[in-house]
Amino acid sequence: MRIVHVGASGVIGKAVSAELARRHDVIAVGRSAGDFHVDIDNPSSISRMFSQIGEFDTLICTAGAVHFAPLADFTIEQYAIGLQSKLMGQVNLVRLGLRLLREEGSFTLTSGPTNDDPISLETSSAMVNGALEGFVRSAAIELRQDRRINLVSPTMLEESSPLISRTSGWTPELTPKGA
Amino acid sequence: MRIVHVGASGVIGKAVSAELARRHDVIAVGRSAGDFHVDIDNPSSISRMFSQIGEFDTLICTAGAVHFAPLADFTIEQYAIGLQSKLMGQVNLVRLGLRLLREEGSFTLTSGPTNDDPISLETSSAMVNGALEGFVRSAAIELRQDRRINLVSPTMLEESSPLISRTSGWTPELTPKGA
Repeated sequence: MRIVHVGASGVIGKAVSAELARRHDVIAVGRSAGDFHVDIDNPSSISRMFSQIGEFDTLICTAGAVHFAPLADFTIEQYAIGLQSKLMGQVNLVRLGLRLLREEGSFTLTSGPTNDDPISLETSSAMVNGALEGFVRSAAIELRQDRRINLVSPTMLEESSPLISRTSGWTPELTPKGA
Repeated sequence: MRIVHVGASGVIGKAVSAELARRHDVIAVGRSAGDFHVDIDNPSSISRMFSQIGEFDTLICTAGAVHFAPLADFTIEQYAIGLQSKLMGQVNLVRLGLRLLREEGSFTLTSGPTNDDPISLETSSAMVNGALEGFVRSAAIELRQDRRINLVSPTMLEESSPLISRTSGWTPELTPKGA
């Protein structure tokens, strides 16, 4: 399969790409690393990337930023980061990639656990992950030619644990390495 | 209780206001109707409204627009309508109203059923309702002084039925009047 992987050099992306590259043709896309470059916050950049890559069987996105802050301090501009990047960045990959996605192909986007299991400072993340769930569930019923759309919610990453502990005072329980 | 009701003259708003006004001091707010005016798409307009109204025990919002279109035709500008109005309009009411909400007070926002039970043309509505669920669940754990935040998902409105049937060809089953 020809797989376009946006965010291939990120924390999740590296693990996903290593696994898929064993048996598929993975086109790595990143902001500055990879075979092609894209800024998912910018729809023109997404269109340019698709015109360079052409048709594909699967698009995976493991990219997207959100801001963390206490509810009382959050600004409009800080909420806009998550809406423009992790939410509309991924939605625009679907919207603009639709005409290049082959029959029986699929999109796989990335959400997270914060909308179901909230923690402090994460109202933006919870908003964006909830929005992605709604969008994907709704978009799925409009796809034709056996094309599909999936959303993966990774659990807490080991790599995120020090950050979360430092900002919220909460130490997440993690599955031990190799378990 | 002193209740600020944004969207009091809308389809849902009229019914809610009529019920609450029997036993509370309801301040009706609308885009052009009501005791005070606000454009919830515009944070400056929200700040101005709060400076005119002052402290309150409850804020209810039954306002907010979203656009309907097929997934393949949706534009960025059309998605922005729902994000700016029904999503961030309601989030900004919470964000900017927080310092005026009295102890043990509450916010009640309005979502809808489309993120759990999707129908055609509603990817924007599903996105916005999912985002509101995530936001409210997350904001709830950050509120102090026994203040609360609620989200109400009204079922399909009788008033929406002709619109839905016309645009999607689907006729929703409705509970008969008076049932």
